[in-house]
Amino acid sequence: MTQPRLSRRGLLGGSVAAAGAAGAFAAGRATASEPDEAARAASYAFRGEHQAGIVTPAQDRLHFAAFDVTTDDRDELVALLRDWTEAADRMTQGGSAGEVGPVEGDPLLPPDDTGEAIGLPPSGLTITFGFGPSLFDDRFGLADRRPGVLRRLPHFPADALDPATSDGDLCVQACADDPQVAVHAVRNLARIAFGRASVRWSQLGFGRTSSTSTSQSTPRNLFGFKDGTENVKAEDGAALADHVWVGADDDPAAGWLAGGSYLVARRIAMRIETWDRQPLADQEAFVGRAKGSGAPLTGTDEHDAPDFNAATGTVTTIAPDAHVRVVHPDAHGGVRMLRRGYNFVDGSNALGGLDAGLFFLAFVRDPDTHFVPVQMAMARSDALMEYLQTTGSALFAVPPGVGEGEHVGQALFA
Amino acid sequence: MTQPRLSRRGLLGGSVAAAGAAGAFAAGRATASEPDEAARAASYAFRGEHQAGIVTPAQDRLHFAAFDVTTDDRDELVALLRDWTEAADRMTQGGSAGEVGPVEGDPLLPPDDTGEAIGLPPSGLTITFGFGPSLFDDRFGLADRRPGVLRRLPHFPADALDPATSDGDLCVQACADDPQVAVHAVRNLARIAFGRASVRWSQLGFGRTSSTSTSQSTPRNLFGFKDGTENVKAEDGAALADHVWVGADDDPAAGWLAGGSYLVARRIAMRIETWDRQPLADQEAFVGRAKGSGAPLTGTDEHDAPDFNAATGTVTTIAPDAHVRVVHPDAHGGVRMLRRGYNFVDGSNALGGLDAGLFFLAFVRDPDTHFVPVQMAMARSDALMEYLQTTGSALFAVPPGVGEGEHVGQALFA
Repeated sequence: MTQPRLSRRGLLGGSVAAAGAAGAFAAGRATASEPDEAARAASYAFRGEHQAGIVTPAQDRLHFAAFDVTTDDRDELVALLRDWTEAADRMTQGGSAGEVGPVEGDPLLPPDDTGEAIGLPPSGLTITFGFGPSLFDDRFGLADRRPGVLRRLPHFPADALDPATSDGDLCVQACADDPQVAVHAVRNLARIAFGRASVRWSQLGFGRTSSTSTSQSTPRNLFGFKDGTENVKAEDGAALADHVWVGADDDPAAGWLAGGSYLVARRIAMRIETWDRQPLADQEAFVGRAKGSGAPLTGTDEHDAPDFNAATGTVTTIAPDAHVRVVHPDAHGGVRMLRRGYNFVDGSNALGGLDAGLFFLAFVRDPDTHFVPVQMAMARSDALMEYLQTTGSALFAVPPGVGEGEHVGQALFA
Repeated sequence: MTQPRLSRRGLLGGSVAAAGAAGAFAAGRATASEPDEAARAASYAFRGEHQAGIVTPAQDRLHFAAFDVTTDDRDELVALLRDWTEAADRMTQGGSAGEVGPVEGDPLLPPDDTGEAIGLPPSGLTITFGFGPSLFDDRFGLADRRPGVLRRLPHFPADALDPATSDGDLCVQACADDPQVAVHAVRNLARIAFGRASVRWSQLGFGRTSSTSTSQSTPRNLFGFKDGTENVKAEDGAALADHVWVGADDDPAAGWLAGGSYLVARRIAMRIETWDRQPLADQEAFVGRAKGSGAPLTGTDEHDAPDFNAATGTVTTIAPDAHVRVVHPDAHGGVRMLRRGYNFVDGSNALGGLDAGLFFLAFVRDPDTHFVPVQMAMARSDALMEYLQTTGSALFAVPPGVGEGEHVGQALFA
């Protein structure tokens, strides 16, 4: 069902009682009458072959939340996913979370939108949903539909995970070019979930650390280096098919996931104060790239392929423990990821430093082949590890896109 | 001394050894050769009569940090303020934190800029410094220069302060239209302070909750309401003189503060999940304004003056405990504030909700007359208090602007 496109401006009167009539929306509250605002920012369709927020050109702000389902009733879970789908469909188009709006409803009822996004354009909002391994326990009858590779990530050396900021039954990734729009989305989805699911942990991020389109330049992480140079890009359909989208025959138990992906989320704290005291040459040796240009130490341009055999005498130019060597596809059978992480600063730590780092997000076709071996190699032998500590970790199956009249993950429950 | 205007792009070669020569900067690394980038964003002068970041049109992102001074040496404190001044002067103009740059220096030394802002325009960055009451203890010989009203704020009913996120010897307010630029500023000032001061607490914010210029519309807080409608604006010089800037004769002990201000910082957590379940009419009654337009319940336009005597029968239209009535200047001898707060979401709380709220920042001429009575009235009788809990609190004296060749707060140490 196509949702009417509501305005979230909420300034056109507070007594439109015919809230259920699509005609009333179209006449009284459509944004079509506000072309300037509509033009102010991009919007992305919520429905489609794949979920938005994966190959969508990475927006600059993130609010990510993991939820625990608090009901044991399968029907209530399905109803939640249906409600979330309708709300996400509206909000990504610049509309309200609910079908009435923040100020248009019965004043004796709580509004069905919280209002802080009134007047804000869509701001490129995407909302992407995922299912954690724990959703497939015995509560909802989904155990036999769990993909074989959807299980808690293994313990990696130097992980220091806080259970309170790891895992989750469900996840919501909200990306936008305005943090207030991303926060509004997660906050309203949490509100809608009341009594059925509650926020387990949430993470804000900024300054996308990867580009997902060839139209975007490569941004910098809080080590000051360009990050995600070799990312899978939206324009490379073959790479997406090989490395990001789950194939129809990948897992007999999980045909419902075909066209979806797996989302790895890792909260990686950086010891930035220690990093900042390292000589530039050491920083570049640890990464294997020049800090300014992002070029590999064997090249001059960011996108030059690193030459891992180049050496001065017996010393390779790119060190054995350089990050670019340890995680390079050449060392892992050619596997690539679509990374979509964000920088974060969460206040300060007990040592008088900033609690800062990288909230790593990567979409892969198979975590067992595309993430775990790469992360294991990095944890074991990457020079950067001295400056990193992973404090949160989660894996989610991201179902394919949502068709008209469907809710997210519908095939899983069919 | 005018600082050379450096680029922080850091892409013009890594071996400019004549780092101390201003001529080399002007020739090789000035942003003047990159007019497109320079035009991409506003920049504000760091030096001037008043510090920037007060009447400057409120930018959309905040990184605020409070520091503890870790040296007992007055000269080291002064040297820190001098170093901070020079770094702030550079960074607000789009330059690097240090005079060499993130990638231009000796590769065997740590860079004097951390690099994550390479390529980013000034983004309207302002950096505003303040001095907490504790700076005036017996460590630095400043006790007899402490303004009489610069002391810890009193305990207000319902305060639930965390000492770890309250107070501080020094503060830095970094505002910008790109969070990565604001974070880069605070991170580099913390790096520069190493061994002399360390971060006590820090707070990120977004979605400015006040406008400080008549050119700006009034934004919304996380209750969904417009916030700061009656704010003191940059264009109202008389109000600034009356309510924001400290006068030359305000305090005989603190002539050094003339032209400065006091900054009240309060981290106010909002019980947003409970708020979201209140009927719209109740929300509007608690605030005393319409949620959509922001108009007082007795008016139709946001900027209509509220009519506190209007009533239906014996019931006043604006309730006795409505926020707009309790804090209105008419109830407090006409005092006004220049508010400059931000929304925040700091992950989630133990109850399955979002740890969200308002990071309240207000600049006032005198906290004893312009803040404490208003806050006390609010804490005692404001209907909003049921949905608020203040978890952090601090007061700082904000010295006047910095002249050429001076460092911030120079008159305090003269």
